[in-house]
Amino acid sequence: MNAEDLILISVDDHLVEPPNMFEGRLPARFADLAPKVLHREDGSDVWTFNGSIIPNVGLNAVAGRPKEEYGVEPTAFDEMRPGCYDIHERVKDMSAGGVLGSMCFPSFPGFAARLFAAADDKDLALSVVQAYNDWHIDEWCGAYPGRFIPMALPVLWDPELAAAEVHRVAAKGCHSLTFTENPAALGYPSFHDAHWDPLWNALVDTDTVMSIHLGSSGRLTLTAPDAPMDVLITLQPMNICQAAADLLWSRVIKDFPDIKIALSEGGTGWIPYFLERIDRTYDMHHLWTGQNFGDKLPSEVFREHFLTCFIEDPVGVELRHKIGIDNIAWECDYPHSDSSWPWPGEELLKSAAGVPDEDINKMSYENACRWYSFDPFAHRSKEQSTVGALRAEVAGRDVETRSFDKGRFEIKHDGISLGEMTSKATA
Amino acid sequence: MNAEDLILISVDDHLVEPPNMFEGRLPARFADLAPKVLHREDGSDVWTFNGSIIPNVGLNAVAGRPKEEYGVEPTAFDEMRPGCYDIHERVKDMSAGGVLGSMCFPSFPGFAARLFAAADDKDLALSVVQAYNDWHIDEWCGAYPGRFIPMALPVLWDPELAAAEVHRVAAKGCHSLTFTENPAALGYPSFHDAHWDPLWNALVDTDTVMSIHLGSSGRLTLTAPDAPMDVLITLQPMNICQAAADLLWSRVIKDFPDIKIALSEGGTGWIPYFLERIDRTYDMHHLWTGQNFGDKLPSEVFREHFLTCFIEDPVGVELRHKIGIDNIAWECDYPHSDSSWPWPGEELLKSAAGVPDEDINKMSYENACRWYSFDPFAHRSKEQSTVGALRAEVAGRDVETRSFDKGRFEIKHDGISLGEMTSKATA
Repeated sequence: MNAEDLILISVDDHLVEPPNMFEGRLPARFADLAPKVLHREDGSDVWTFNGSIIPNVGLNAVAGRPKEEYGVEPTAFDEMRPGCYDIHERVKDMSAGGVLGSMCFPSFPGFAARLFAAADDKDLALSVVQAYNDWHIDEWCGAYPGRFIPMALPVLWDPELAAAEVHRVAAKGCHSLTFTENPAALGYPSFHDAHWDPLWNALVDTDTVMSIHLGSSGRLTLTAPDAPMDVLITLQPMNICQAAADLLWSRVIKDFPDIKIALSEGGTGWIPYFLERIDRTYDMHHLWTGQNFGDKLPSEVFREHFLTCFIEDPVGVELRHKIGIDNIAWECDYPHSDSSWPWPGEELLKSAAGVPDEDINKMSYENACRWYSFDPFAHRSKEQSTVGALRAEVAGRDVETRSFDKGRFEIKHDGISLGEMTSKATA
Repeated sequence: MNAEDLILISVDDHLVEPPNMFEGRLPARFADLAPKVLHREDGSDVWTFNGSIIPNVGLNAVAGRPKEEYGVEPTAFDEMRPGCYDIHERVKDMSAGGVLGSMCFPSFPGFAARLFAAADDKDLALSVVQAYNDWHIDEWCGAYPGRFIPMALPVLWDPELAAAEVHRVAAKGCHSLTFTENPAALGYPSFHDAHWDPLWNALVDTDTVMSIHLGSSGRLTLTAPDAPMDVLITLQPMNICQAAADLLWSRVIKDFPDIKIALSEGGTGWIPYFLERIDRTYDMHHLWTGQNFGDKLPSEVFREHFLTCFIEDPVGVELRHKIGIDNIAWECDYPHSDSSWPWPGEELLKSAAGVPDEDINKMSYENACRWYSFDPFAHRSKEQSTVGALRAEVAGRDVETRSFDKGRFEIKHDGISLGEMTSKATA
């Protein structure tokens, strides 16, 4: 297959929330309390809510920058490529990269909307979550039907309200919920507690996928305070194996046999080892730990519930049949620094030399459509959906890298500051 | 290859320290302060040192038990298979399993001898570390030349003394040091600090491998307090990727180009993914993080420094050339619950169907000999060293499982209590 002939749907991208997103979306009594963007004297833009200041408007929104500046966190909207926050520019960037569809995780609220859940006034918190979801579904995704897989924020503090919100957004066509990889790490009951059952029921009833993004536990893999950033970057994807193990051995899988979970940005190359490990753990230990999957192996149960995702992962693609060819979806990760944009099709094919077209199609878009109940071809033909066709629509668009001011910057991850660093490229 | 024709050297087993090990090995002024075994009223045996009580004489010493009882931690010597602590019984068990050679990690002091390092009297602590090392090298390994790869405990609290001890034991033929996977997690300077340079110099000067066992950071992968044990068991091996990343990106590798590190009990199946991940991290990020491996890729640097180890790991064996066929060593993990004993050869071949003999030999013993400067064939011929030949020497030995009392037990890991549980098999 040629890159031009690929159809690409990304199950993990990120949006930077634009300043006006809450306008007119909250009850009048909450208008003054809505999250707001402030432009500060130092030139940076920050979101504020509930007394918190979120210093970086975009976390790692480096698309279109030279690699020397990847660590240089943009701190203002005018330092970012507009495709980060402007839906019209985003769609043009997608087309320029040949990307048909995209699912966009949130930025300033945190992957599991912890920022909103922290508000003391839970009526306000609920209004903000619902306003965000309506904006995301109606305005961001709704502007270009067939180009976005809608995704909702959770009501993290109340499983009954969370369930109601899943039902509410499902009625608007949203079948993805971004959630934390470990609620216990955020101070809530763990995956092993019946506390969450109303939410699991709602997910199953609405065929909604729980999309768990790496880093969403609020726990980072920090080996030592003085460890280089490369350690963290290396370990983040594999770290999601903790969520996979936690859920696989939990009662959630057993009591909610139709629940579906995506391990977003978790990579795939480690999955075959993981599946062997869970089968061996079961064989060696289930007689005393009491685990019981009936006549199935844990690896079979895994394939019934988990979608795995990769940006560029040659060994995962090579071992796709050990993972499950129906359990792998490609992702672009725009505008983060691990993204393959603006050449995602070409990068994907580097990992997939010699792979039959049938398998490539499953990974590049068919699995994403099926898992997320997404049908882009109701809006455009497959012929109009290829990398080549989409690029032709925006022929001449500039996707080259450009430079911004460099210097000291703050490294953040899902709202947690990792401290200040100096860009080595300029120091 | 038939199982009978294999030669097996295990780079990760465990010994349970026998009560008399310190007798006559400490200066007279420390005789009363030496670690001692107490037999308690409840029938359990405990080690005591420096005011600490180590409640389980053997951590997970379940060899020879039915799987239903794997969680039932033995609490007394008479509940354990004697091969755990008696060198003569151990060698017979090794031969009965067809295992030629073995490297034995410590039990009650912790993998990095944290227990000894905690003593306020550092002269006492040093005497105990040295007494332990002399016992291990001279008495445990020395009783059967050519059957054991000797391994020393570190002097954890002083890099200069640690270096001196590495030189001292190297002069006795010991080229393996058990160490922690993360000194920062134990309250010491991290791998990124020059603090440890005297030790690294000593390791390089004496061609000693730093053997890092999973769990040796004192940090367990606990997702939630109510998570099932299966989660921890699943995640422990892969968790060592943190040490691999921490060291790979550290100055240790760059400033000490001859240093060698073993990732003991870490498994191998995830390594191909890990190598792709570090190469991609380097490609995408080194321009701003400042990493510099000259004209090499991180994966090439990894192969120069790291030995990976597996018990049973089919995908790792299949991908052995992506890992590095010279970087893989087999292990038995006797007497822990993940061990393939008493049928390790048969288990190994299950993972290695269709693998050429040359590759099997590298993994099953040749790499272990080369990395650890170990030459068993100075003591017996290769013909006398095979699984079949060794088993013939102890023909008729009982290796069947036998049962002990079941009930409540304490789960511990490297000296850390994980709380009390009830064996599900009997509850």
